[in-house]
Amino acid sequence: MGIAIGDAAATATRITPGNALRPEDIAAQVVAGSAVAPADVAEYALRLGDDSLILAQQLGWWISRAPELEEDVALANIALDLLGHARSFLSYAGGAWGKTEDDLAYFRGESEFRSAQLVEQPNGDFGRTIARQLVVSTFQCLLYGRLVDSSDATLAAISAKALKEVDYHLDHSYQWTLRLGQGTEESRRRMLSGLELTWPYVAELFDDDDLVERLKGIAVRPSSLRVDFDRRIAEVLSEAGLEVHDVPRALGGGRAGTHSEYLGHILAEMQVLAREHPGAKW
Amino acid sequence: MGIAIGDAAATATRITPGNALRPEDIAAQVVAGSAVAPADVAEYALRLGDDSLILAQQLGWWISRAPELEEDVALANIALDLLGHARSFLSYAGGAWGKTEDDLAYFRGESEFRSAQLVEQPNGDFGRTIARQLVVSTFQCLLYGRLVDSSDATLAAISAKALKEVDYHLDHSYQWTLRLGQGTEESRRRMLSGLELTWPYVAELFDDDDLVERLKGIAVRPSSLRVDFDRRIAEVLSEAGLEVHDVPRALGGGRAGTHSEYLGHILAEMQVLAREHPGAKW
Repeated sequence: MGIAIGDAAATATRITPGNALRPEDIAAQVVAGSAVAPADVAEYALRLGDDSLILAQQLGWWISRAPELEEDVALANIALDLLGHARSFLSYAGGAWGKTEDDLAYFRGESEFRSAQLVEQPNGDFGRTIARQLVVSTFQCLLYGRLVDSSDATLAAISAKALKEVDYHLDHSYQWTLRLGQGTEESRRRMLSGLELTWPYVAELFDDDDLVERLKGIAVRPSSLRVDFDRRIAEVLSEAGLEVHDVPRALGGGRAGTHSEYLGHILAEMQVLAREHPGAKW
Repeated sequence: MGIAIGDAAATATRITPGNALRPEDIAAQVVAGSAVAPADVAEYALRLGDDSLILAQQLGWWISRAPELEEDVALANIALDLLGHARSFLSYAGGAWGKTEDDLAYFRGESEFRSAQLVEQPNGDFGRTIARQLVVSTFQCLLYGRLVDSSDATLAAISAKALKEVDYHLDHSYQWTLRLGQGTEESRRRMLSGLELTWPYVAELFDDDDLVERLKGIAVRPSSLRVDFDRRIAEVLSEAGLEVHDVPRALGGGRAGTHSEYLGHILAEMQVLAREHPGAKW
């Protein structure tokens, strides 16, 4: 897969001499006041965290439903990685408003989530899930590959840690895209249908907006990743003998809190226990 | 928690000089003919594998539904560990009948499963899940702690690997039992109710039968673990200020393929994709 990641290991140690990269470490630094995000940075971290949080919940559905036990394990591991990234980004973001990762995950309404609409789209069959994984993991690899150079040390550190794991997710989605594309008639048909259902939601990932413009040197302008994204996707699809036809883009708006019908259901499931017992020290 | 595990690390290397403990390694040895289980041993391995497989599926439900993000991660990790143990035991068992782990997981009917009825009981609320975890992890810790000395080298090796992980599961369930028992009125009430719902299914875990008697030196007689089990449970419940009243035992019979209404639903969900496309090389 070979997306160049620069000296990620060195970058990862920017925050402290140790490897302060677990969500708990980020949270501790927030509490200690040594890593509090300015409001704009927090808003940006929320986008990154929400993408991973919602996708992790979606992938969790596959546990016990994958076509092979080995795949059960693989998808569960990917979901766990994403949950880890989400926890770090949300812990960092929360510091700006005196909130914890749990406050942000369980006590925000639908319109307060900043995830792209792609990640809340239904799992569908395995082909559709892999198509979504292909898009998200390619996007995140390119994004984190640039964010490791962010002038915000915490964003850079979380991204460096995440990049190593997302690189594996990318490999996983590439391998499955090839396997489904070059497999049986049926697997090929499902992969093509998955790509077609996924494609309307790709454009939103690359929309720039005022927030990103204000965060020069800190955030990455999504539009600047599009050429690389298209090239990589074209490569893997060509190798898999697959093709995506032009499809009109969906309206988007996830970064501003406009979501499709699906997010409400995901949140209902995710938030019910915490909300039943608000503040309960379980 | 400190259940003595003997020299597990040394035991774990019995099979090969390396650390041949991943499910894939077991499967490879089965294919190579260097670790093929006799029929009785395979039947016994099936019991061990099915307990872990069904419990893993059950815990998978909690992903995205736990009361804290950190707990989401913890339960997912436990489910993944159990899935790993199940894959190893099932790979080993399958060798006796020319079947793979996936054949055994996805293409057996309900009456062919050899799991205890406890693991198929509903998740209920978090208190009930923790009560079930407390029982299973205590049982598995004691069981694997003895199986590391099995004269069957493969069972011993899988158990040694599993023991290290189950020791963490035990710690997790102990901590939660204390936290819920000593927490609020509500958490205490839920934990007590969880224990009460779980207890009828405890006795079955300790039933001896002909198979176990035939496997002297290889299997562990479940009844021989009961005294230690009771002592350990009494200790943690007393520390948590909890008490379980005498409850009549459920009929049991899981080891002979008699299951409660719940297993059918779990299997339906777990098996649907593999059965829709039997033999499909996804």
